[in-house]
Amino acid sequence: MTDQQAEDTAPDEGRASGRDVSRRRLLGFAGAGAVAAGAAASGVLVGRASADENRTTDDPAGKDQYPFRGAHQAGIVTPAQDRLHFAAFDVTTTRRDELIGLLKAWTEAADRLTRGESAGPYGPVGGPYQAPPDDTGEAYGLPPSGLTITFGFGPTLFTTVDGVDRFKIAGARPKGLIDLPHFPADKLDPARSNGDLCVQACAHDPQVAVHAVRNLARIAFGTAGIRWSQLGFGRTSSTSTSQDTPRNLFGFKDGTANVKAEETAALDEHIWVQSGDDRAGDWMTDGSYLVARRISMHIETWDRTSLKEQEDIVGRDKGAGAPLSGGTEFTEPDFEARGRTADGKPGDPLIPADAHIKVAHPTVNDGTRILRRGYNFTDGSTGLGRLDAGLFFIAFVRDPVKQYVPMQTQLSSKDPMMEYLQHTGSGLFAVPPGVTGPSGFIGEPLFS
Amino acid sequence: MTDQQAEDTAPDEGRASGRDVSRRRLLGFAGAGAVAAGAAASGVLVGRASADENRTTDDPAGKDQYPFRGAHQAGIVTPAQDRLHFAAFDVTTTRRDELIGLLKAWTEAADRLTRGESAGPYGPVGGPYQAPPDDTGEAYGLPPSGLTITFGFGPTLFTTVDGVDRFKIAGARPKGLIDLPHFPADKLDPARSNGDLCVQACAHDPQVAVHAVRNLARIAFGTAGIRWSQLGFGRTSSTSTSQDTPRNLFGFKDGTANVKAEETAALDEHIWVQSGDDRAGDWMTDGSYLVARRISMHIETWDRTSLKEQEDIVGRDKGAGAPLSGGTEFTEPDFEARGRTADGKPGDPLIPADAHIKVAHPTVNDGTRILRRGYNFTDGSTGLGRLDAGLFFIAFVRDPVKQYVPMQTQLSSKDPMMEYLQHTGSGLFAVPPGVTGPSGFIGEPLFS
Repeated sequence: MTDQQAEDTAPDEGRASGRDVSRRRLLGFAGAGAVAAGAAASGVLVGRASADENRTTDDPAGKDQYPFRGAHQAGIVTPAQDRLHFAAFDVTTTRRDELIGLLKAWTEAADRLTRGESAGPYGPVGGPYQAPPDDTGEAYGLPPSGLTITFGFGPTLFTTVDGVDRFKIAGARPKGLIDLPHFPADKLDPARSNGDLCVQACAHDPQVAVHAVRNLARIAFGTAGIRWSQLGFGRTSSTSTSQDTPRNLFGFKDGTANVKAEETAALDEHIWVQSGDDRAGDWMTDGSYLVARRISMHIETWDRTSLKEQEDIVGRDKGAGAPLSGGTEFTEPDFEARGRTADGKPGDPLIPADAHIKVAHPTVNDGTRILRRGYNFTDGSTGLGRLDAGLFFIAFVRDPVKQYVPMQTQLSSKDPMMEYLQHTGSGLFAVPPGVTGPSGFIGEPLFS
Repeated sequence: MTDQQAEDTAPDEGRASGRDVSRRRLLGFAGAGAVAAGAAASGVLVGRASADENRTTDDPAGKDQYPFRGAHQAGIVTPAQDRLHFAAFDVTTTRRDELIGLLKAWTEAADRLTRGESAGPYGPVGGPYQAPPDDTGEAYGLPPSGLTITFGFGPTLFTTVDGVDRFKIAGARPKGLIDLPHFPADKLDPARSNGDLCVQACAHDPQVAVHAVRNLARIAFGTAGIRWSQLGFGRTSSTSTSQDTPRNLFGFKDGTANVKAEETAALDEHIWVQSGDDRAGDWMTDGSYLVARRISMHIETWDRTSLKEQEDIVGRDKGAGAPLSGGTEFTEPDFEARGRTADGKPGDPLIPADAHIKVAHPTVNDGTRILRRGYNFTDGSTGLGRLDAGLFFIAFVRDPVKQYVPMQTQLSSKDPMMEYLQHTGSGLFAVPPGVTGPSGFIGEPLFS
């Protein structure tokens, strides 16, 4: 912000004299483009949280606030918030310095937004009257609402589909950031798949999540544009033992066996990239990989199957979520347990041999566990009088090649649930470690 | 439910003995098709609210419960909940008795769902093991969450586009239920417009709203199918003086001048159909009309305009929502008030002559007021790297011909905000009065 701009405090003609319109003029304005990058340095904080009007939300947890900075990015082990706006971006510049500039600007904006402040230092009404506001305003007055923003880098950021190394980072492409193979029953829509960058915004209030993505897209204008985006309305996993397990659109509790935030050893083993995992990708240490799959559910067909068939397919009781071998939700399934026939002899296994929980179980997947963080979605209806609904699957893993690919290969060919599913979108993203220093930016180790 | 079915309590082979799986078998099952119609008579209430597991929501207002029955339908003056799932249906049967059967089944299901119970009397896990559950289960354990379900009848229910009177009700088509004219800048998608029936489900929790629409669609299977549906994530209007005014995706407070629930005289004058309004449509007394308009917003363009231009277009201050003539949000705008030029002479009007609040104001619209109940939406992105976002406008009026058509004619040609809007979907529905007696059903006066 220049002195000249700071002094741009001339009163506006045609404004009501009774209102305090000069205070915001005093703050000046550095132009939308420069705002995000300069926010930390300016020290000016006129955020939405400091607005004197605070819309009452129905959500007391709206006061939840998770720091953006830390060794790991937020939005992974953070207790899963109930709403999602996920967006994939294509980078439109070929200049490395502009990409770095975007990541710096996004870092500053994400830091502000997750504190419940506006995207830029002046906010939706604080800049000069003759300039566009540096925040779009729809979250003005709303609390932080537990917002987290998680960034990821797609394979095409490193090498385009035509093999071009636009940003001189191809040599640092981590070995886990593969092009996912085609799985049986995939019917992927290119308009819902892949991307150079991704942003996962989660919050208790969807307006806060949408506001975050919209303002990050605005900051990216001229450097990157939205390739696709997906809203999710209900979390389908717990990421903390403090949360109970929600239900997916099949009506079942989902993600019971998730790696939880409290399992620190399991997180190191299954979720966080460790130093030495990958020589080229050592900048990924403390990062993770994000697998996104838009899974359409044939809910009308599912709804016509019997309760028995549904439970046999899942391998769990629909009510409590307990394995069919007995116990409660968190009882380990006993795949050997059998029922009894009418004459008292051992019957079939209580959990069918091809039940989803068996096919996905670590014991048949080399001990693999993943951290799921997906959301239910409903995107209007199909042209066939059905809801276009399903699960936007998000999982974080330490190594997609060892964890997701074998598991999905197994599931896509053996899981009887696949009869009711179709994968319609897909993306794999390298999630860099968190930003620790006050001047750092997301992905900095990749560029230094 | 037959005695035979009630006695269908044989234990299932292959089930864990330790779990209480027989209790739900005791309840029997009447088959999904017959469930809704018979629910009231059966008196069996095994709803999700009575489940012993209650997911903790972040939303204390999840306990809100609004009765479905009453002189007027709920979901109109009910304090606007924050989430919406709206669906339009096409009736696929040509039999009057099947249409009536659907409306009866919907009435019973809506009565149950708004009490926080499951769609059918046995719920997601209460029926016989070999039959499909009579509720899809994704809201099992969730509180009522302030759910309201509001039904409407489209013009084509009375007369098809080919002029067919399928259900012998063409003579009772109310005069307000017109085919809306084409307005300037309309670019309506037939796949997002019209319909024989509509369902507006509003709740604090989107999973509860989606669950309601899904289960009503399931009950309609074979009789009616979803034509289009729309999710909304944030209310853009207040319908009670107890609510503060939320913001639309232009970042402005919206619907400040709304008719509110507390203005009972204004509701009778502007919102509720009165006896004698319409001889053919007298069955509509205590009903209303619902206008739905999917309004796409060019938010990227809007975000590039100056704060001054935005405020001049709206006619209100972006921060507090006060008219540019001064005061606070609820101060009446003074369209005569002028600023002063540098030499102290009267300047331009403080509220520009073509500001949105002036063009939409009752004083230039024959005193017309409406009850707005719209929602912000974001449906992923367009193919052009932009968010597909906007306002799903819903308004309730006593007479669309006298209220909505003149107002929209005026707005669509004179409102400078139209530069940033495009109407991409449309529907007009007659909203019958509420159901009062225990045996009544929605729209009963139309068929009796």
